[in-house]
Amino acid sequence: MEFCGKRIKTREKFDDVAIHTCHLEAGHKGRHAEYPFLQHLKAKHSRVANKIKRDATMTTGAAWKSEDAGPNRIARWAMQLTDKELKQHGLDMSKLRPGIVAKLRDKAASYDDCVDVAIKLTWLTYQMQNAPEAPKEIAAYLEDLRGSMSKGSTVCEVCRLPLDFKLFAEAKRGKAEIETCHKDPRAHNSDNVGFAHRRCNVAQGPMKLDEFYDWAKGILSRVGRV
Amino acid sequence: MEFCGKRIKTREKFDDVAIHTCHLEAGHKGRHAEYPFLQHLKAKHSRVANKIKRDATMTTGAAWKSEDAGPNRIARWAMQLTDKELKQHGLDMSKLRPGIVAKLRDKAASYDDCVDVAIKLTWLTYQMQNAPEAPKEIAAYLEDLRGSMSKGSTVCEVCRLPLDFKLFAEAKRGKAEIETCHKDPRAHNSDNVGFAHRRCNVAQGPMKLDEFYDWAKGILSRVGRV
Repeated sequence: MEFCGKRIKTREKFDDVAIHTCHLEAGHKGRHAEYPFLQHLKAKHSRVANKIKRDATMTTGAAWKSEDAGPNRIARWAMQLTDKELKQHGLDMSKLRPGIVAKLRDKAASYDDCVDVAIKLTWLTYQMQNAPEAPKEIAAYLEDLRGSMSKGSTVCEVCRLPLDFKLFAEAKRGKAEIETCHKDPRAHNSDNVGFAHRRCNVAQGPMKLDEFYDWAKGILSRVGRV
Repeated sequence: MEFCGKRIKTREKFDDVAIHTCHLEAGHKGRHAEYPFLQHLKAKHSRVANKIKRDATMTTGAAWKSEDAGPNRIARWAMQLTDKELKQHGLDMSKLRPGIVAKLRDKAASYDDCVDVAIKLTWLTYQMQNAPEAPKEIAAYLEDLRGSMSKGSTVCEVCRLPLDFKLFAEAKRGKAEIETCHKDPRAHNSDNVGFAHRRCNVAQGPMKLDEFYDWAKGILSRVGRV
């Protein structure tokens, strides 16, 4: 599919950093739309749609609260700017603790990669157990971009067990039971991103998925379980 | 060893809930002491001594901040009181979210079990790689209660790799690299408690240690690693 590509003005912070564009198919009729594939979820399951867009495009929020803790969720493409450029946007990286800076910089991704991730996450969402049916147009759009869809085929990237759409609604202490997961925690692109159980994502921690499996195997061999 | 058992008055909250006692050997000379085994660490590595006492005797703090988030660290033995008794002590459990109440109640332990845990953690600490030498008196005290000590023999309860005393000093974003760990997260007694790498403890999460190993084995078999 070739995207329309028409520039879209948004009112988001760091909007001038990335050129937001229409992701409807080239030659489409009607209004331009940046995230047309999310429109159905947005209408029916807005929390899920918001989560997909947020996880795809924004850095994580600061769980800690202090002067030097860093900003709460900013566009991932802003993290591609230099310190000097960020300062011109009102974000003084030199005032943040080095660990926070490293964490924020790890989240850097291009606008196009972020949109790609949002598309993949949407495609995976519709293939979860108990997920709503995608309207024909959206299903065709997603299948054109990512391949055919099959209900019930989306598994946790870490433990490989099927994921249920209902888990989006289940949260413990404000933490959703499904999280966006990175096979390599420091690369944000559609090949590398999927969904995982919160428990699985937390267990993987800062390790690459392969490193996590090696780590787990080392443990099991030391306790005589393999 | 028989403890002296003389009642010690402390100024801690919920002091009247548990009878604090002297844990020097019966018939000792000099002043009474509640945690005599911690005195050397307290003088030389106060953060480690404070951590041992805190983890052994207190509930975890609330990481979240809100009206109904619950109190920040209270004595584990206070969690053995009824809601009514706690209210008389100024803690209204009915105002807390059910999840918080459950979490706090999970931490309940008797005063004696808490002191036992503190003794075990101290005994394990002196046996870590690069740990300071225990003064003769303290070594004899700990060995009498827990068995002979051997430097370098303390391993992470989860991954079974040796733990280095230096890790106590290493913290990332305020989180120490060594955590107190429970083989069964809902039982606080010396058989069940040890140290673990932060990463390992986080990965174990709310699972019992055996459940964690089973869970990890399931994953590895699904990804073809066992």
